[in-house]
Amino acid sequence: MKKYVIPYYAVIFTSTQKEKIEGYSEMTIKMEELAKNQEGFLGIDSSIEDVGITVSYWTSLEDIKNWKQNSKHLVAQKKGIKDWYSWYNVRICKVEREYELDDY
Amino acid sequence: MKKYVIPYYAVIFTSTQKEKIEGYSEMTIKMEELAKNQEGFLGIDSSIEDVGITVSYWTSLEDIKNWKQNSKHLVAQKKGIKDWYSWYNVRICKVEREYELDDY
Repeated sequence: MKKYVIPYYAVIFTSTQKEKIEGYSEMTIKMEELAKNQEGFLGIDSSIEDVGITVSYWTSLEDIKNWKQNSKHLVAQKKGIKDWYSWYNVRICKVEREYELDDY
Repeated sequence: MKKYVIPYYAVIFTSTQKEKIEGYSEMTIKMEELAKNQEGFLGIDSSIEDVGITVSYWTSLEDIKNWKQNSKHLVAQKKGIKDWYSWYNVRICKVEREYELDDY
């Protein structure tokens, strides 16, 4: 796995899901594919246990704003608010430092 | 769930684990308890699927540095490097903006 060129930005998306969700996995796959083709997209980490955490990495705040306003992504966001999430939180962060296991 | 006062910092810890791990859960619980008593600690989110993601939230960079150097935490870090993680990455981030589902 690779590190990105600092400074860059991370969007930390944490969420809890409703009990019954339909079409969520399909939408997730679709949105990841779409994001990958978005200007400034660097990568994504995702893990969903009791709380879902998805962190996506971006070159600039402008790129994050453009992704938020992508028309297909807007549809997914609305569906998420209506059908899938009981709660979510979005944090826009500037990555200032980074190190890995191999750096030791 | 609550939002913290901006600006604050997030530490994004992503990792993959080795196949056989012993004592990891116990250490995780112990370290979370310890971190909660650490100056500047705000909160933590954790989800471990294929990739483990733990995000902890802190008041300042100084607080993060102090936690990294906490003697019991240092023992846990060494054990993690030796026994538990096949890879990990740590990103120190400044949270610049935040919003939640309820903000709409």
